[in-house]
Amino acid sequence: MMADITPVLDRADANLPKSLERLFDLLRMKSISTDPAYNIECSKAAEWLARELQALGFDASVRDTPGHPMVVGHHPGEGSGAPHLLFYGHYDVQPVDPLELWEAPPFEPGLKEVEPGRKVITGRGTSDDKGQLMTFVEALRAYKETRGALPCRITILFEGEEESGSPSLKPFLEANADELKADYALICDTGMWDRETPAISAGLRGLVGEEIIVRAADRDLHSGLYGGAAANPIHILAEIVAGLHDETGRVTLDDFYEGVEETPTEVKATWEELESAAEKLLGEVGLSIPSGENGRSVLELTWARPTAEVNGIVGGYTGDGFKTVIAAQASAKVSFRLVGHQDPVKIRESFRAYVRSRIPADCSVEFHPHGASPAIHLPYDSALLNTAKAALSEEWPKPAVVIGMGGSIPIVGDFQSMLGMESLLVGFALADDRIHSPNEKYELASFHKGIRSWIRILDALAA
Amino acid sequence: MMADITPVLDRADANLPKSLERLFDLLRMKSISTDPAYNIECSKAAEWLARELQALGFDASVRDTPGHPMVVGHHPGEGSGAPHLLFYGHYDVQPVDPLELWEAPPFEPGLKEVEPGRKVITGRGTSDDKGQLMTFVEALRAYKETRGALPCRITILFEGEEESGSPSLKPFLEANADELKADYALICDTGMWDRETPAISAGLRGLVGEEIIVRAADRDLHSGLYGGAAANPIHILAEIVAGLHDETGRVTLDDFYEGVEETPTEVKATWEELESAAEKLLGEVGLSIPSGENGRSVLELTWARPTAEVNGIVGGYTGDGFKTVIAAQASAKVSFRLVGHQDPVKIRESFRAYVRSRIPADCSVEFHPHGASPAIHLPYDSALLNTAKAALSEEWPKPAVVIGMGGSIPIVGDFQSMLGMESLLVGFALADDRIHSPNEKYELASFHKGIRSWIRILDALAA
Repeated sequence: MMADITPVLDRADANLPKSLERLFDLLRMKSISTDPAYNIECSKAAEWLARELQALGFDASVRDTPGHPMVVGHHPGEGSGAPHLLFYGHYDVQPVDPLELWEAPPFEPGLKEVEPGRKVITGRGTSDDKGQLMTFVEALRAYKETRGALPCRITILFEGEEESGSPSLKPFLEANADELKADYALICDTGMWDRETPAISAGLRGLVGEEIIVRAADRDLHSGLYGGAAANPIHILAEIVAGLHDETGRVTLDDFYEGVEETPTEVKATWEELESAAEKLLGEVGLSIPSGENGRSVLELTWARPTAEVNGIVGGYTGDGFKTVIAAQASAKVSFRLVGHQDPVKIRESFRAYVRSRIPADCSVEFHPHGASPAIHLPYDSALLNTAKAALSEEWPKPAVVIGMGGSIPIVGDFQSMLGMESLLVGFALADDRIHSPNEKYELASFHKGIRSWIRILDALAA
Repeated sequence: MMADITPVLDRADANLPKSLERLFDLLRMKSISTDPAYNIECSKAAEWLARELQALGFDASVRDTPGHPMVVGHHPGEGSGAPHLLFYGHYDVQPVDPLELWEAPPFEPGLKEVEPGRKVITGRGTSDDKGQLMTFVEALRAYKETRGALPCRITILFEGEEESGSPSLKPFLEANADELKADYALICDTGMWDRETPAISAGLRGLVGEEIIVRAADRDLHSGLYGGAAANPIHILAEIVAGLHDETGRVTLDDFYEGVEETPTEVKATWEELESAAEKLLGEVGLSIPSGENGRSVLELTWARPTAEVNGIVGGYTGDGFKTVIAAQASAKVSFRLVGHQDPVKIRESFRAYVRSRIPADCSVEFHPHGASPAIHLPYDSALLNTAKAALSEEWPKPAVVIGMGGSIPIVGDFQSMLGMESLLVGFALADDRIHSPNEKYELASFHKGIRSWIRILDALAA
């Protein structure tokens, strides 16, 4: 007979103030992985996490990589026959610019009452992913403090390069496959459907990132003297960007849609119920018209269709006032979200060929790759998923839903292909958490009920 | 009988080291007019110039405007019957970024031997326009020190807002029309044809500047969660930029070519002799293919055809690494060079209508105007021009040529329309002076022979 988990849940409730203090300690570390200026802060965060796990009885250590370190910990479980679980999260965060748009400094976390009875935790990394990974750590703590043991054998893997393309992850998984292999992987880096409805993500888009730098003259030119005769790299880049989509919103690259399948009608039917909320998704950020491919719903566009997006562009004079210059170069960061069986390598090649074909003979282009991962599809109907779904539905006001997901979590594919593990993607972020943007937040309820959700999921999986 | 000017020229030669010291003093002042951080440096430059003129016997003063101050000075001439001349130059300079591309700090002027017997003056403003305006001041000094008088009555007007659209100039000319009106205006802000061939500029393109800010969502979005459904302002802006030109290089705005006339065959014929040198113009900056309207020569494109150029663009994440964000906004600085009778007001309206028509209903656009001036045509054949041409041809190895000019000097139009004055545009800059770019320079020969050229021109005009 299973032990009652009520005392564990109660302990999580009682711990909440201290759990928040610990989270705030982690949030104060400026672990921006993409900017080398913060390397030491990344290491500090890794060391802090290793100490936290050790305090919970884990055999935990900081493990060097060519980039930012991993944290790996092992803890035996109490029940025989319970599965061995690998939990994954990432301690690195996105850059914080534009800094002036933050209402409070990004690395000074706080608790803010946004409406009566609803508090949010504010700061960079609250939702992506420090607040989320700590829901799992605090769930383990509640078990440990109540029962002196964990219900399952647990291995933990925290990485510090998720926001910069995870360059060290694959080699690390390869080199430590025996140590990291478990029965299932649990990943807490996704969202709820809405404030009341927990969600399990079963499809993730892949990602190809590419930076291009277009070069024309060997110096900035005066647009009066040269304008009309000298190539303008901003114009060339604008044509490249504008030509990426046709008038129906489809991406124009050769063979781009190879491996993209139409979503089955029965899946689309389940999404239709959610669609009005999806329209709200745009409304919440001040938009109303689905951009992208014509004739497809917001959910289909973000869950089941590939994209080409320019994430940044810069060239010429961008300061105050005006400068009549023709720039020597202009650059853009372009990313593609992939679905189905789109091949990241082929997509990158196709993009590069497309760009090269639009560069005039006396100009040049330089490419810098930034990450490549295929799309992932998890089974919509498995024992793991159904167990977690039932556990989540006990904790939250509304039953859990299984959803697609627009973002990319490359490790899911790596767990599948390299370690043969099925993953479960459960997270408590909300669409308005402003991850990657100024004023990122995480609902206090997400943190608190997230901890409680993991307690329930672990209990159900151990059974 | 005219006095011999040899002693005046000799005095200019003897003065050269001191003339350079004075120029360096002026170059050290960071008079960047477009950036309010340098307001005090602009005032310092104005005060320095007023003191220099006073030392030459001018009744000179710094005159406040709503922006940067003007310097106005008056000096009587020695000969009766000699014309009253107004000399115009500007003491403000362009911003200096990207600072890291400068070989020496931009406001620490120096003298550098670039090949045996050829020295250049280095630093921001050497060529545009401090070095040029000082050629005239030093010419006056040589007269004054040799003869104790100037050959003509001279009025001087130095402004400090030329690089930021001259917002105070028209009101100032209006308010001080009687004081500033002279027989002719001399302007030293243009270039030579090449190192050996002086030039008088007889056509100048007009300019319309416009900054546009395209806004989509009310915050930066995660491209995984929103990509494919949320409008991307960088895409919208790229389409606007790419659509500005058709496949033949023509500008697509409605009525853009209204008022643009084909260059007369006989004028084009005189340009053909210069064309091989014009192709070299592109070669010197690492380009080889004339961009812009198909089937037109480099000289025609830069002297006689209108343009649309993006001078700067920025949106999204542009730092190191990668950030998968959909930006909330993207902006561009766009300028149009005008020729013939193109109307700056209509061009701006046409551009705004074009942009508005390409903004999705749930996005918005904001416009900021930056200057507007029509094109200018000076007579190709006048007494003033012919006198100056002969004087220049005496000083330089090759005879002076009359050329068109791609840049814009709005004051020429204002002198014509508001003060009824014909202008003479003589300058000693070279195409490779890198004005508006890092490592701006001015040939020592331009400075030295520029001073001597003005001595000859003043002598010829006084006769």
